[in-house]
Amino acid sequence: MATSSLLLLLLLISSCIISALLPAASASKTRHFKWEVGYIYASPDCNEKILMGINGQFPGPTIRAKAGDTIHVELKNTLHTEGVVIHWHGIRQFGTPWADGTASISQCAIDPEETFVYRFRVEKAGTYFYHGHYGMQRAAGLYGSLIVDAADGEEEPFRYDGEFNLLLSDWYHQSIYDQMVGLSSNPLRWIGEPQTLLINGRGQYNCSLAAHPVEGSNACRPTSKDCAPVVLRVLPNKTYRLRIASTTSLSSLNLAIGNHKMVVVEADGNHVEPFTVGDIDIYSGESYSVLVTTDQNPSSNYWLSVGVRGRKPKTSPALAIVNYRPNSPSKLPESGPPMAPEWNDYNHSKSFSYRILARRGAPKPPQSADRRIVLLNTQNKIDGYTKWSINNVSLALPPTPYLGSMRYRLKNAFDAGMPPENFPPSYDVMRPPPNPNSTQSSNAYVIGLNSTVDVILQNANALAVNVSEIHPWHLHGHEFWVVGYGDGRFGEKEVARFNLKNPPLRNTVVIFPYGWTAIRFVADNPGVWAFHCHIEPHLHMGMGVIFAEGVEHVGKIPREALACGMTAKMLMDKHRP
Amino acid sequence: MATSSLLLLLLLISSCIISALLPAASASKTRHFKWEVGYIYASPDCNEKILMGINGQFPGPTIRAKAGDTIHVELKNTLHTEGVVIHWHGIRQFGTPWADGTASISQCAIDPEETFVYRFRVEKAGTYFYHGHYGMQRAAGLYGSLIVDAADGEEEPFRYDGEFNLLLSDWYHQSIYDQMVGLSSNPLRWIGEPQTLLINGRGQYNCSLAAHPVEGSNACRPTSKDCAPVVLRVLPNKTYRLRIASTTSLSSLNLAIGNHKMVVVEADGNHVEPFTVGDIDIYSGESYSVLVTTDQNPSSNYWLSVGVRGRKPKTSPALAIVNYRPNSPSKLPESGPPMAPEWNDYNHSKSFSYRILARRGAPKPPQSADRRIVLLNTQNKIDGYTKWSINNVSLALPPTPYLGSMRYRLKNAFDAGMPPENFPPSYDVMRPPPNPNSTQSSNAYVIGLNSTVDVILQNANALAVNVSEIHPWHLHGHEFWVVGYGDGRFGEKEVARFNLKNPPLRNTVVIFPYGWTAIRFVADNPGVWAFHCHIEPHLHMGMGVIFAEGVEHVGKIPREALACGMTAKMLMDKHRP
Repeated sequence: MATSSLLLLLLLISSCIISALLPAASASKTRHFKWEVGYIYASPDCNEKILMGINGQFPGPTIRAKAGDTIHVELKNTLHTEGVVIHWHGIRQFGTPWADGTASISQCAIDPEETFVYRFRVEKAGTYFYHGHYGMQRAAGLYGSLIVDAADGEEEPFRYDGEFNLLLSDWYHQSIYDQMVGLSSNPLRWIGEPQTLLINGRGQYNCSLAAHPVEGSNACRPTSKDCAPVVLRVLPNKTYRLRIASTTSLSSLNLAIGNHKMVVVEADGNHVEPFTVGDIDIYSGESYSVLVTTDQNPSSNYWLSVGVRGRKPKTSPALAIVNYRPNSPSKLPESGPPMAPEWNDYNHSKSFSYRILARRGAPKPPQSADRRIVLLNTQNKIDGYTKWSINNVSLALPPTPYLGSMRYRLKNAFDAGMPPENFPPSYDVMRPPPNPNSTQSSNAYVIGLNSTVDVILQNANALAVNVSEIHPWHLHGHEFWVVGYGDGRFGEKEVARFNLKNPPLRNTVVIFPYGWTAIRFVADNPGVWAFHCHIEPHLHMGMGVIFAEGVEHVGKIPREALACGMTAKMLMDKHRP
Repeated sequence: MATSSLLLLLLLISSCIISALLPAASASKTRHFKWEVGYIYASPDCNEKILMGINGQFPGPTIRAKAGDTIHVELKNTLHTEGVVIHWHGIRQFGTPWADGTASISQCAIDPEETFVYRFRVEKAGTYFYHGHYGMQRAAGLYGSLIVDAADGEEEPFRYDGEFNLLLSDWYHQSIYDQMVGLSSNPLRWIGEPQTLLINGRGQYNCSLAAHPVEGSNACRPTSKDCAPVVLRVLPNKTYRLRIASTTSLSSLNLAIGNHKMVVVEADGNHVEPFTVGDIDIYSGESYSVLVTTDQNPSSNYWLSVGVRGRKPKTSPALAIVNYRPNSPSKLPESGPPMAPEWNDYNHSKSFSYRILARRGAPKPPQSADRRIVLLNTQNKIDGYTKWSINNVSLALPPTPYLGSMRYRLKNAFDAGMPPENFPPSYDVMRPPPNPNSTQSSNAYVIGLNSTVDVILQNANALAVNVSEIHPWHLHGHEFWVVGYGDGRFGEKEVARFNLKNPPLRNTVVIFPYGWTAIRFVADNPGVWAFHCHIEPHLHMGMGVIFAEGVEHVGKIPREALACGMTAKMLMDKHRP
């Protein structure tokens, strides 16, 4: 009896062990990458310049993984005098806040010739990307795609016969050093519109492929494979998934394919209720999947066109060719590239954004929030320097990353005190700031762990009269539900109208000119997280805030993430012989 | 009796205290500077670009001190993503090896927004300068003058009525990032000749002030004060000291003043036996003082001209105006600017260098050396990349500075083993390397403390046939006696001919094409010291060696100098909670 009980117990224990081990071993794996970030020569738009590549490639290598996998990137910095970090955009970093890749926030920048290991889990299938998050290094070309497929045995709720990945960006001929100095100068030297739009790192400067096609004038014949147009080789009557992500520095984009409709099925790694459109808007920091059925005249090829939205375009659209096999890829499409909507047709943009709703069965938001933070977006002046401010505070990142300084409760590592939760009721969002003077600070919003937070992003008039810009806001460490949009100033009565039934989950959302956007999220990820405008020059000019939650629950931060500033000093001092 | 003894003792003690304190208090002081390094817009040659300034100035502020003073510079890095250090060129840093300002050697680069305190004593009157010593930041404009006057009560052994300070440099329109990537590329992209030569940070691009003078054609009228020609306002029949230092990236220079002779009195902070010349050669890293007597027709102004030596010049000479008061400074000199000697007239250059000898009474070298290190300078290939090598080793600096890793005896912080002391007897210095393949290493020469070392710098043919270049070698932490020069390969019999009677003390010395130069120094300064070609792209391509001496005697290295790489890890690890 005692023996059989023991045997039973042993069997029970071993079956527990087996059941605990088996699923992990069979379903998910660790994917190893060894990368070197360094400057390379490249001609993304037929004009050679130096840019930041990874392992000699631009854009960086595509990471492809399955949901549940662990990504392990040994990142070596081979820049000569600059630090570097890489942010994994859209990856939650649950339990690994030090791997979020944000300089001054989650880790110390990696010194030249040093290596940092990014190790994190990708939880959810979807279309993601990665990019530099130090100074304006993203705009120097430091980016690439991160595609997560459904875990083995799981399925996406839509079918397709093939897929293409399109990573969109904009391109400047001026170096990022020149750009950063100009943006930090008094008077401001604005970076202007990009020279070129790129699809998968390729574009054509000052030349429309449609007017002067590939086989046409020399002026637009790509002089190297770097800048040859992307070709999407398709078969007739099939359905293709286009994964589209935007890592632009400045531009908001619109994408369309001649004659073809698109069915939107994914936004920022979340399934959305499918809807059909002729074109999609995509803002910096966003990603979408659309399904395209090749149901048009198969004897023709078609243009895929990417143009600028929200700012008066001075940049030619980027073009790719949808090549119906067996046509030659160099066969000119019979009709011109699709025209983008007027750059300032915001109703068109809004109607697209408003149609993005969660697919049935998606997780619903909590029905109420514990806290509401209202963030007024204004353009300001500080000692004559042009800045962007949130509730009149322009973000100045501290030299010691918050994650370490908060974890070790260091004094004076960043500005004390909580930033404002709201802005004065008298503030008129339709007019330039009556007093444009603002302040710089590194202070942070401390949020109760597991609390539900509403953030109202309130747009306003910039410094000039009748100017209000689009700002795509990106949240690190979380996804949020987009529970409402509106024009003008947000009012208390809007809360009752929040969409709590099927709001989409996202990591990036836009505020339209003079409008507001309401999001809700659960602060369930111990760490310190940036929430900021994804327009690179705007962030450089202070357009962001810091959220900290449950930092006392953060696990052991890798030494390398702490090896700078006050955390390094504290840890070194104690030991110093 | 007991009382009077006590009184005597007290008197004795207090007089000791007074005598110990008084000279220090009266004669030397600590000079405080608070500097910020950051990019600024400037137009040194009427073409605007961003460059590295200090407190908004280019060149950086001039430090003026007296021998025996302590210099205290709080240096804040306000670059956006780059580290920075500053080297105090010609200052021995006796007892303060961590203040030598060499990234990877004496300290960790200062992170953005961080401050490092350089505190060191200036021992000897003379003409010095300071500059960046990380990547190619010197070539980005990070330099300025450091002038040390004789201590109170001391006198220089020559008289003058006034002085001028001329800091010479060369200027490229290409960014240092582009330059660094080009130099690190396969195939090599050489930086070419500079666009402009600068005097005190001013020059005129693509335009000869002499042909198109200040008041002449618009093409050469300086469009801003940044690029207006330097004017030296003099009175007739006076004697002026011209302090001249070169911090060029590439160019060797020649300086002359129309109609005037110059008496050379100082080289690299050491008095030399005065000699009279019509022009002087000055190589990157060198400094001179010359005395000029204004004994020419006082109704005229005169050109001071700086041209290129040793490389076929593609750069217009830099011009300044010696303005005899009360003439207008814009009055054109009656005769054209003095012509520089032919660029490849090496006999002219050698005859100048050979005339530089120590002034009577200067310290003499030890009569024999404990060790001789022969350093063959060759251009090489490593995996197809063009490099410069010393005894077939191209210097690759380690991420952890030597000073810290050696002081704490860290393993694997740099390549073990001693670099070669000599090169094969069969090597033909007159021909390209028979096997151009070289190796990269971070290994270092460890030298016995207080030993006397001879170094023979042996020049050779570069990769191309019939090419051998000038290389000015600069030693950190010491001065050395230049005991011999010669053509062709150095031979044992030359040792007997070394000048041990009146060799000049210097910190920089040149090797002429296909020639050798012998130096002797006493390794009396505990620390780790670079010895390298002062041509910025050559150092970037590996042209240097590391000398380490008595590192176990180095005092407490400031924490900030250790806060990177393996020293940071070691010190942090021990303590980590």
